Amino acid sequence: MSNYKFECLNVNITDEGVAHVEINRPKALNAFSTQTWTEIGQCFTQFKHDGNVRCAVLSASGRMFTAGLDLKEAATGPLATNSTEDVDRARRGYYHRLFILKFQDAISAIETCNKPVIAVIHGGCLGIGIDVISACDIRVAAQDAYFIVKEVDIGMAADIGTLQRLPKVVGNDSWVREVCYTARKVSAQEAQAVGLVGSLHASKEAALAAAMDTASLIASKSPVAVVSTKHLLNYSRDHTVQEGLEYTAIWNALAHNSKDMPTAIMASLQKTKPQFPKL
Amino acid sequence: MSNYKFECLNVNITDEGVAHVEINRPKALNAFSTQTWTEIGQCFTQFKHDGNVRCAVLSASGRMFTAGLDLKEAATGPLATNSTEDVDRARRGYYHRLFILKFQDAISAIETCNKPVIAVIHGGCLGIGIDVISACDIRVAAQDAYFIVKEVDIGMAADIGTLQRLPKVVGNDSWVREVCYTARKVSAQEAQAVGLVGSLHASKEAALAAAMDTASLIASKSPVAVVSTKHLLNYSRDHTVQEGLEYTAIWNALAHNSKDMPTAIMASLQKTKPQFPKL
Amino acid sequence: MSNYKFECLNVNITDEGVAHVEINRPKALNAFSTQTWTEIGQCFTQFKHDGNVRCAVLSASGRMFTAGLDLKEAATGPLATNSTEDVDRARRGYYHRLFILKFQDAISAIETCNKPVIAVIHGGCLGIGIDVISACDIRVAAQDAYFIVKEVDIGMAADIGTLQRLPKVVGNDSWVREVCYTARKVSAQEAQAVGLVGSLHASKEAALAAAMDTASLIASKSPVAVVSTKHLLNYSRDHTVQEGLEYTAIWNALAHNSKDMPTAIMASLQKTKPQFPKL
Amino acid sequence: MSNYKFECLNVNITDEGVAHVEINRPKALNAFSTQTWTEIGQCFTQFKHDGNVRCAVLSASGRMFTAGLDLKEAATGPLATNSTEDVDRARRGYYHRLFILKFQDAISAIETCNKPVIAVIHGGCLGIGIDVISACDIRVAAQDAYFIVKEVDIGMAADIGTLQRLPKVVGNDSWVREVCYTARKVSAQEAQAVGLVGSLHASKEAALAAAMDTASLIASKSPVAVVSTKHLLNYSRDHTVQEGLEYTAIWNALAHNSKDMPTAIMASLQKTKPQFPKL
Amino acid sequence: MSNYKFECLNVNITDEGVAHVEINRPKALNAFSTQTWTEIGQCFTQFKHDGNVRCAVLSASGRMFTAGLDLKEAATGPLATNSTEDVDRARRGYYHRLFILKFQDAISAIETCNKPVIAVIHGGCLGIGIDVISACDIRVAAQDAYFIVKEVDIGMAADIGTLQRLPKVVGNDSWVREVCYTARKVSAQEAQAVGLVGSLHASKEAALAAAMDTASLIASKSPVAVVSTKHLLNYSRDHTVQEGLEYTAIWNALAHNSKDMPTAIMASLQKTKPQFPKL
Amino acid sequence: MSNYKFECLNVNITDEGVAHVEINRPKALNAFSTQTWTEIGQCFTQFKHDGNVRCAVLSASGRMFTAGLDLKEAATGPLATNSTEDVDRARRGYYHRLFILKFQDAISAIETCNKPVIAVIHGGCLGIGIDVISACDIRVAAQDAYFIVKEVDIGMAADIGTLQRLPKVVGNDSWVREVCYTARKVSAQEAQAVGLVGSLHASKEAALAAAMDTASLIASKSPVAVVSTKHLLNYSRDHTVQEGLEYTAIWNALAHNSKDMPTAIMASLQKTKPQFPKL
Repeated sequence: MSNYKFECLNVNITDEGVAHVEINRPKALNAFSTQTWTEIGQCFTQFKHDGNVRCAVLSASGRMFTAGLDLKEAATGPLATNSTEDVDRARRGYYHRLFILKFQDAISAIETCNKPVIAVIHGGCLGIGIDVISACDIRVAAQDAYFIVKEVDIGMAADIGTLQRLPKVVGNDSWVREVCYTARKVSAQEAQAVGLVGSLHASKEAALAAAMDTASLIASKSPVAVVSTKHLLNYSRDHTVQEGLEYTAIWNALAHNSKDMPTAIMASLQKTKPQFPKL
Repeated sequence: MSNYKFECLNVNITDEGVAHVEINRPKALNAFSTQTWTEIGQCFTQFKHDGNVRCAVLSASGRMFTAGLDLKEAATGPLATNSTEDVDRARRGYYHRLFILKFQDAISAIETCNKPVIAVIHGGCLGIGIDVISACDIRVAAQDAYFIVKEVDIGMAADIGTLQRLPKVVGNDSWVREVCYTARKVSAQEAQAVGLVGSLHASKEAALAAAMDTASLIASKSPVAVVSTKHLLNYSRDHTVQEGLEYTAIWNALAHNSKDMPTAIMASLQKTKPQFPKL
Repeated sequence: MSNYKFECLNVNITDEGVAHVEINRPKALNAFSTQTWTEIGQCFTQFKHDGNVRCAVLSASGRMFTAGLDLKEAATGPLATNSTEDVDRARRGYYHRLFILKFQDAISAIETCNKPVIAVIHGGCLGIGIDVISACDIRVAAQDAYFIVKEVDIGMAADIGTLQRLPKVVGNDSWVREVCYTARKVSAQEAQAVGLVGSLHASKEAALAAAMDTASLIASKSPVAVVSTKHLLNYSRDHTVQEGLEYTAIWNALAHNSKDMPTAIMASLQKTKPQFPKL
Repeated sequence: MSNYKFECLNVNITDEGVAHVEINRPKALNAFSTQTWTEIGQCFTQFKHDGNVRCAVLSASGRMFTAGLDLKEAATGPLATNSTEDVDRARRGYYHRLFILKFQDAISAIETCNKPVIAVIHGGCLGIGIDVISACDIRVAAQDAYFIVKEVDIGMAADIGTLQRLPKVVGNDSWVREVCYTARKVSAQEAQAVGLVGSLHASKEAALAAAMDTASLIASKSPVAVVSTKHLLNYSRDHTVQEGLEYTAIWNALAHNSKDMPTAIMASLQKTKPQFPKL
Repeated sequence: MSNYKFECLNVNITDEGVAHVEINRPKALNAFSTQTWTEIGQCFTQFKHDGNVRCAVLSASGRMFTAGLDLKEAATGPLATNSTEDVDRARRGYYHRLFILKFQDAISAIETCNKPVIAVIHGGCLGIGIDVISACDIRVAAQDAYFIVKEVDIGMAADIGTLQRLPKVVGNDSWVREVCYTARKVSAQEAQAVGLVGSLHASKEAALAAAMDTASLIASKSPVAVVSTKHLLNYSRDHTVQEGLEYTAIWNALAHNSKDMPTAIMASLQKTKPQFPKL
Repeated sequence: MSNYKFECLNVNITDEGVAHVEINRPKALNAFSTQTWTEIGQCFTQFKHDGNVRCAVLSASGRMFTAGLDLKEAATGPLATNSTEDVDRARRGYYHRLFILKFQDAISAIETCNKPVIAVIHGGCLGIGIDVISACDIRVAAQDAYFIVKEVDIGMAADIGTLQRLPKVVGNDSWVREVCYTARKVSAQEAQAVGLVGSLHASKEAALAAAMDTASLIASKSPVAVVSTKHLLNYSRDHTVQEGLEYTAIWNALAHNSKDMPTAIMASLQKTKPQFPKL
């Protein structure tokens, strides 16, 4: 466990293999500083290599999920592109692009960690918050949750994943575009109706409990089957059906060597609950 | 008709050009043996070349649509990868990959046959059943239908199309991932709400009748228009909008030579019902 | 304003930067003649280069949005492919393909103009009408609106965008295919339920007013942020998530040079309403 | 012929269908002004629709093929990005990108005109000259020709096609990169050795005569076969082998309707020279 | 061996695992009838599944490699598209496209069989002959060999692979286009200079012997390594470098389970010649 | 400089901005241990962010460029896949795939560092050596150099880039496949003839001097122009021509803000040698 010590995150891993990650900057309304997203990237990259982690839950402490980007930090950081007028714009652009890519990679680590991640949203989920939850697999929310694709209101297009993933997460393009262009507030109920969140719960605690339950259920399955499913879903989203099938064929030609298959089939026939070793 | 004799399938083609395919292994709960999916592949490939078939309906006999893969057969077949420990895993993997590809191709024949296929689901639709119905164009169900993406429960990732097609069939990624990771049971009502099935009916018979009606309607349209529409929808799903448009342009530069167009336009102006020759 | 004089379109641009485009061939039920779609192409291409336009609304005059393709014209035009039997089909096909591509490009100008476009549908929206509204960003409708993917009924597959964009606009593939194969009538309520239109309004006037309100809101945002968002949403729809992210990084490395960002952030901190110069 | 009146280009079309295009700004060493490339775009786009043009030859008048971009014009034009420091960089970038795309489209018209284009190079071919000849199908040169990928020497990366097409035109990546990074001078002999030009000739006149001979030969072939071959080569360069094959299948299912095929086969069997009508 | 009985092909498999396939219609100058290419498809598909075949050599009997398509058969076959004027062109086009795809698949079987194929060319290699040898891995020729991309001379674009593979086989686009547009004769020496063939030999017999030697050498290597190398080269040709790398990673994560690796490494350290079991 | 301290590499950066990287394990014939390739990855990733580095040269110390993978280490490392028979193959495969990806990423850092890299080969260049030099931009060699794609001789397919990049580096597919299937030795002269190396030199010292000269020349150019050229060449290799053009347009819309452009143009007009600040 000692491997998961962070400043902005609390990480706890259950015996069943459920990692609970809590964003923990409540005083700053969990605003995303560079430290915050760097740690997100580190944490989920580590999960990729850690057999003890089979599924993860991502929630946040305090009043809301996140108020979005840490604008105070941004005002003096690499995004503060107008601060020094004398710089060569092409040179600054070269490094600024690398900075954006690094930020994107940190959030994409949620997707590439191969273990399913369930987001639990309560209170506001603004700006970068939408990028983050779009990179998760499953989203549940408290009744008080609300969502704002805030970026146009700070004069920019969302660039950490919202414009890439949100339209593939919900099947209503008219709605996606409207909320991206207007930065209007979306209630938990509307988010559920459109499919952004799966289930709504009376409180953050209830939402978290439900997420932990689902995560425990996933953690009880064959980890080979689960990581394969996540990896193949992501691969297939980005390829043609035929390419997805062909990639799956070579993947499973390897994965079918797992002893989890006879274990699972035997348990199924014997109506017992199978136990699978960690990945 | 004599061309469509199968062991595991009943095939009947109406005068209007609607082919009704019934999976017929009721004692085995329509479990998919190698023979079953091989015949599916043969049957729909034949439809591709058969001008008498304009639309198809796929249903199943007995208690449920399908219990999934025939595990008894699988336990001794090519999927039984742990049966002979002494084999070279790379060599076996080479042939096992070819086996998976062959299985995939058989089910993909539903998609590539060019004639629309309407699935009618009643009772359980498990595992490979989801792969099959995802490859169909339209899905209707009886009230008693339920759906389980069962593969993680036998220790593997679904590999015959579910992970490729299901997320493109329903527009709710959070839901897709949850049911794929958990293998939980989905009711007919939930399936309809999420868009997996279009309409629900009181019984299997009612669902089948509705499907046959829709199929008859489709069969009454210009077969050139119908097969073109299916082919172009599938092509466009797998390409950029611009590539889809360009492919459509060359396709229709040929298809517009059809005499169905003046026939249809004339009938439209004269308010008569047009008759179109078979493909 | 004098730059926007058309035969089939009325164009009016508000001081806020909302361009209202009205298809204006009410006697012909706004049937799409070559002149009509040519002007659509010209108008929206011009918007791309006109900093005074920040958002657009597309509606139609008279009884309905559009009855579809102008069949009278088509009967004697390039689509009339069976009129002269003696022609070399390959040569005619060469030019016919170019004609289809030109038609497609005209409608795609709605998408490529970079400024968001809100469609307002009332009465019937048939055939090419579906191609047109699928190329818009947001769709609102009057209660009396109905929709028919009419092309199979004139013996052809839709070729101006419906088969490419509609399945990416609504997340219900079973529904998309059914309405494309059957050419059945879809009510405004069904269109809303499936996500084809966002909001329904008592009358065309109410729908138009709502669209103009949303457009005004969008026009009040940073135009750099808004055109970036539309451009990146379209790019990302057609690429993998990773490619979308990388393209976004270089795009924003340039766009972040905008003075709109400090303006917006300052206004956000000071709780004032920011003013952004035109693009 | 009167359709091809340009300021910077001379166009002459032979009875056989060979269009000779001569870049004609000898005093400016055929430097590419906006007028020049705009006319290139117009001319070759027109060829696409002109059945009288079956093949084209592109050469230049005066001392050399081209000295490259017209730097005098550029110093005051849209490329002069540092001229007005006070502008919003994001806004200027929006329009500057559209300008580059327009420039690219003009040169790409050589590729998309569907009729083969043979470039004849003499003297220097610098900067934009490489973009232009890379967009041609076949390149022949006089012994005195030399080539410089000049862009790095004006502080920028080539952006009108060289970096996209040159590596696909010659099969020597080490050489391509070296000449692009160093802007060193390449002799006609080296250009031939590496495959950039096919044949070398004693003089510009000899090179032009050879190009006209090849063009006449191509113009004597079935125009359906020739434009199909060019279109399919370009399509296939940009797609997988399998996608290229599938696109070819639909293309030829149309093109095989040409009467040129029986004409050609009959002539082949009868050992006569076939005559093919214009496209 | 009895499995490889064909009308138009002689097949002989050596003990080392080299399959020698000889096209054997010398009286017809090995013109490709439907029977011929159907058997090519069957033969190489069978090789894919036959562990006894580790490498293949493809040559032809009689005066030349092949005179191209069997025009006599074509004049009455599916390519004879102008024979019956009364047919519906769209309907015929539907089936004609399927015919071309079937023809393409037969020749692509050379590529997809996974075992390297060495073509031995002597005398003429015309039309479909170029499609065939482009699908092979390695090409050697006799001094008397010559090559013609003949299709434009029968009024059509090559459609069985030449336009897809030839430009990726030789790195000289100017040359590829010239020979495709002009159908001019290419000598063995020119073919070697441009890289179409690797080595030239005094006679067909010498060329065949050299090919058999190379094939024997390949057959002596680990079959897991060899089929993996061919498969990955083909995959990577059609994908980005990064996608090729990622596919390779999963492929080799399976293939590295082969016992051939320790066998080969041990033999390498002990300077002995390793023996590898068949695939 | 102190930032570039490695165990297996010597790094020296000239005042002009040329980084000379020497692989320095001469006793092991520069065999690639995990430490070696990890440091390659670190070094070139660092170059990406280091404005002092404008171009790099990669050579090796001792008798040869590299003998290939460190087989001693491999025999006990993650590649030793048959060492522990009892492991779950699917689980081991999961981590083994991650290991290959990490190895690939390290070598790909040569490509993604954005600064051109010139490889200097002397003596043997085996196995992983081919992966490495294929990832470089330009290759020069000493007369004594030789090349072997060695992987099939250790029972595996090359998996660190050779199969992806080599066919795109040299334009002779028949040759590429032959050397990959046979693992035969290729002389420096043959490598030059086929385009694998650009220039040959009498000795390693001469080759290194020539590479340093070219590198100095490149380092004297605008760094914005040079990194843009490399980045765009790599992007365009992996995309269609049109996509490459569009990406270039947005890239240069930013890069054209560089002050290097007026500096370069002014120097060009004044015939002076321009000085460009570091990136």
